[in-house]
Amino acid sequence: METEYKYLTAINNPDDLKKLNLTELKVLVEEIREFLVDTISKIGGHLGASLGVTELTVALHYVFNTPDDKLIWDVGHQGYIHKILTGRKEQLKTIRQYGGISGFLKRSESEYDVFGAGHASTSLSAALGVATARDFLKKKNKVVGIIGDGSMTGGMAYEAMNNIGLLKKDIIVVLNDNKMSIAPNVWSLHNYFNEFLSNPSYNKFRNYVWDATGKLDPKIGDRLRNFAAKVEGGLKGVVTPGMLFEALGFRYFGPINGHNIVNVVKIFEEIKDFSGPILVHVVTEKGHGYKPAKNHYQKFHASTPWDKDTGLAIKKSGGSPAYTKIFGEALVEICKENEKVVGITAAMPDGTGLDILQKEMPERYFDVGIAEQHAVTFAAGMATEGFTPVCAIYSSFIQRAFDQIVHDCAIQKLPVIFAMDRAGIVGADGPTHHGALDLSFFRAVQGVVLMAPKDEQELRDMLYTATLYRKGPIALRYPRGNALGVEIKPFSQIPIGKGEIIEKGSDAAIIAIGDMVDVGMKTRALLAKDNIDIEVVNARFVKPLDGELLRDIFSRHKKVITLEDNVITGGFGSAVLEFMNQNKINDVDLLVHGLPDKYVEHGTPDELFRDLKLDPVGVAEVIKDHLFTKEKAIV
Amino acid sequence: METEYKYLTAINNPDDLKKLNLTELKVLVEEIREFLVDTISKIGGHLGASLGVTELTVALHYVFNTPDDKLIWDVGHQGYIHKILTGRKEQLKTIRQYGGISGFLKRSESEYDVFGAGHASTSLSAALGVATARDFLKKKNKVVGIIGDGSMTGGMAYEAMNNIGLLKKDIIVVLNDNKMSIAPNVWSLHNYFNEFLSNPSYNKFRNYVWDATGKLDPKIGDRLRNFAAKVEGGLKGVVTPGMLFEALGFRYFGPINGHNIVNVVKIFEEIKDFSGPILVHVVTEKGHGYKPAKNHYQKFHASTPWDKDTGLAIKKSGGSPAYTKIFGEALVEICKENEKVVGITAAMPDGTGLDILQKEMPERYFDVGIAEQHAVTFAAGMATEGFTPVCAIYSSFIQRAFDQIVHDCAIQKLPVIFAMDRAGIVGADGPTHHGALDLSFFRAVQGVVLMAPKDEQELRDMLYTATLYRKGPIALRYPRGNALGVEIKPFSQIPIGKGEIIEKGSDAAIIAIGDMVDVGMKTRALLAKDNIDIEVVNARFVKPLDGELLRDIFSRHKKVITLEDNVITGGFGSAVLEFMNQNKINDVDLLVHGLPDKYVEHGTPDELFRDLKLDPVGVAEVIKDHLFTKEKAIV
Repeated sequence: METEYKYLTAINNPDDLKKLNLTELKVLVEEIREFLVDTISKIGGHLGASLGVTELTVALHYVFNTPDDKLIWDVGHQGYIHKILTGRKEQLKTIRQYGGISGFLKRSESEYDVFGAGHASTSLSAALGVATARDFLKKKNKVVGIIGDGSMTGGMAYEAMNNIGLLKKDIIVVLNDNKMSIAPNVWSLHNYFNEFLSNPSYNKFRNYVWDATGKLDPKIGDRLRNFAAKVEGGLKGVVTPGMLFEALGFRYFGPINGHNIVNVVKIFEEIKDFSGPILVHVVTEKGHGYKPAKNHYQKFHASTPWDKDTGLAIKKSGGSPAYTKIFGEALVEICKENEKVVGITAAMPDGTGLDILQKEMPERYFDVGIAEQHAVTFAAGMATEGFTPVCAIYSSFIQRAFDQIVHDCAIQKLPVIFAMDRAGIVGADGPTHHGALDLSFFRAVQGVVLMAPKDEQELRDMLYTATLYRKGPIALRYPRGNALGVEIKPFSQIPIGKGEIIEKGSDAAIIAIGDMVDVGMKTRALLAKDNIDIEVVNARFVKPLDGELLRDIFSRHKKVITLEDNVITGGFGSAVLEFMNQNKINDVDLLVHGLPDKYVEHGTPDELFRDLKLDPVGVAEVIKDHLFTKEKAIV
Repeated sequence: METEYKYLTAINNPDDLKKLNLTELKVLVEEIREFLVDTISKIGGHLGASLGVTELTVALHYVFNTPDDKLIWDVGHQGYIHKILTGRKEQLKTIRQYGGISGFLKRSESEYDVFGAGHASTSLSAALGVATARDFLKKKNKVVGIIGDGSMTGGMAYEAMNNIGLLKKDIIVVLNDNKMSIAPNVWSLHNYFNEFLSNPSYNKFRNYVWDATGKLDPKIGDRLRNFAAKVEGGLKGVVTPGMLFEALGFRYFGPINGHNIVNVVKIFEEIKDFSGPILVHVVTEKGHGYKPAKNHYQKFHASTPWDKDTGLAIKKSGGSPAYTKIFGEALVEICKENEKVVGITAAMPDGTGLDILQKEMPERYFDVGIAEQHAVTFAAGMATEGFTPVCAIYSSFIQRAFDQIVHDCAIQKLPVIFAMDRAGIVGADGPTHHGALDLSFFRAVQGVVLMAPKDEQELRDMLYTATLYRKGPIALRYPRGNALGVEIKPFSQIPIGKGEIIEKGSDAAIIAIGDMVDVGMKTRALLAKDNIDIEVVNARFVKPLDGELLRDIFSRHKKVITLEDNVITGGFGSAVLEFMNQNKINDVDLLVHGLPDKYVEHGTPDELFRDLKLDPVGVAEVIKDHLFTKEKAIV
């Protein structure tokens, strides 16, 4: 560490924390914020969530006896403070970087990381499992599940709350209510917190009491008003934000100001030995204590490096527009032409580019909260009435709605479009966020169409094509990050199941899908230097495959490689193998290349593709090693 | 129809219903019950749910203008009355039978079936989609979503309620509260309905009011008690079962006795023109009006034919025990030996055989309600503490937890066991329930083990093996229905990734997985008559494959067929193709046989396997046609 801090410097684990008094904790909290902003501004990362839970995290480790007491976090973006306090302070500067610590909670990283997280709404289910195990083992440790109000919109959290209430386990749920999900909150449960006491039933009742007492003579009236005040007090005790949680079997405490460390420590001290399900409602502010983050929380959700004083991003020069932006703009263009198209996101307007639609045509934009299952069946409902909903959900998050894709969309042949951003290797977010499986699980679903564009214009054309396809679900997947920078042209419809040859070649063929087409072209250029002449094919469709094109390729080439940014298990190459098998093509040496059957860690996409031999240099090497071994040996 | 009914005979669509007055409706309801019991007792089917909603369904079609007004049902088991009233009375006797009408709602069957159903908790999301589309189209029709209290435990329903409350659409939600899911309810929200008014806060408040008034002189005391009664009335108006729904943005009406047709019609007449989200809470009794069904609701959830007077099943003679029972008993046996094993189900204790564990070792049994997502992450939480949870969930329902399998179990390498009953073709329940995809979607997940037993003893051994495997998630899948009747022996551990040759043969090899091994053996017997000598291999594992065994087979056989009760897209045969490709095995004529890339309708498994050529006769035919064409031509 460059800076010497009065207290933070000596904090290496939660035991060090326990040596401080409350006054010292107040200073420590500010030091942690400073250290966090200083470190993360240089490398980028999720800042707002962690700033918001600084006091909360310090208080939890101060009051509870971690790691024997179990803290189970949700999502994990807010885990930076937790990492600082649990022996990873020095490593914070490596967070989300190749070989560095993870941006999320991760069991393999620390015994303090009880349960890995990355996707939302899992912490309460995991906490119930941990608490149930504890009780079987007759241990006495505490189990604390922390969950944000955003994650509370996920149905899974509600399933867990129900079940915890039923089983009456000793569990402390900390509701970190920062009044926003990743995007500002859009759910009605949230309104409950803010609006219940102003609801008409309650006010009607209140007015009734007041009016009734006012009509009586003052002597009796005063007594009655006094009595009514007590009644109202009693009523308020019943009608509180806690009622919903009490209905679910929890004892409710709060709301607590989450930025008053003394209060937060006090409430945990008070309730830590209570039995049964406890809910502590802590109100925090995302980005608290750092003005740029507080004012622009969405931008700071996942930031590239920035200037810590102004909060302005340190921009890399140049660069093409991101696929996300291309998609968002294309959708707006289509929505303007086609009144039946709508956009649906699950709390990721910025990340999916749907914020552009939200701005331009808010009536055609739906953010359903962190609720992928509902998003997809809501879309299916619209499709029954002739609409063409576009569900823009990250590849790894759409896994939450797999059953809804099958049961509500595909079986009913409803024309719902799935735009899966963040497909393939995503980089810094690592294994929980890589979209490594979509080609496999989507391809298995009967009757769907599945495609991936080679560049941003093809993304536009595929989206356009999808909105004209009326026979059932149709999905497109595209990577995180910048597109290629090709010229943007008017939409043109792509025939379903038609691929294309990009460059002919005589020695071997690369059949690539999506972002791998560009890698294929660069590989072709590299191999040209070795006098190997590669044909490059853009498959476009994983399902249905272009049989005619494949037969042509296999009639001319006996050395072929498939390239995909998806696991090879059941993926695009597997589809090509199935095609060859069904068409009795036995005379081709086919190499299936893609993601391995294991989890890829975090790092930049460049670093990861290099390691996976999925960059042009790697692919060229693979082709030479596997398809030209004999020739090389002869040469 | 054999019987002449006074009113039912003339009812062919909802318009006919509207000609009757309320007194006549009362008689009609009884006629419908009689007709339903009479018809279904002969053929089997889901009876209890439909009996419970007889008045509700009649009232909905009586008051609303279907099909312009949209009724959206959940699950669909309760759809029989709806089918009777919407032109399918004569076809009811074909329900769930080959070529007959579906046991669920189905869009392709009737314009009255607005949204297909089969899995739980989807109706409210679909209703919101339909209502949103209506508003875009500036139509005025009503949208009514019907959902049971059991389906309300599914997180998806809660996601939908949140979103409906937010969007303030004109939607009528009918909560059909029959105080049970498929199994008796196990969720705490349910307790809310039953216990809220007896909760301590409320009673404390009530006693306070009463005591305070009792202390005053009678003249004032009476006035005050009178006033207090009004206060209590007002309070009751606030503290009702409706509060939870009001908190979510709904206007609440109820509870209504769902078996008083006059009341039910009245409430729908009253509220049908109200705007905004409306919730009507109707209390019904599963199996109402038919004693055998009412007393044994679980047995009547999905019945085989029975004697309508006694309610006793008309048993087919003989038969082996069901896989479900074998599994349940094996799990109990293992739990007795291994104190770390627990069983988890999602509201399907009987259907998964976990009722046996529930009876024998209730403390090791967990029913989390219709909440597959939570079930899996709850299991993962237990696994972090050294437990070995067995999630017993139907193949088609585990799709709901795909992300939790990946994100919470596999990435963290947690030893959670997935016991997938109802894998492959399930028969009468049809496309929403066939477990046609599990081999494909599970296989794609990095690092999992995936297996399927050839018979009940192997099921036992695989379950036992799974409980000893500690390296990550491990899944086994097995079919609905009776096992083979083999001898039950003590457990023996199966080496992970090891298959076996069942019978050697010289002309071709069948490599089969799971229930297809037995089909393979029978095919072998059939083909022996044609002097074709077939080797039969039990693959046991889909992942990891037994490479040594496969290399042996492919070294000796050039005609090989893979058999699986799963879609061939990305399934077991696809795994074998990937293996052959990776091992450069090009000289084998491999035929991949399994379920097609389309939805298989309902019927008995025998009928469906016959159509799919997955019965021994069919497989023999396929082998002769595809692998021995030339020889046959020569002969």
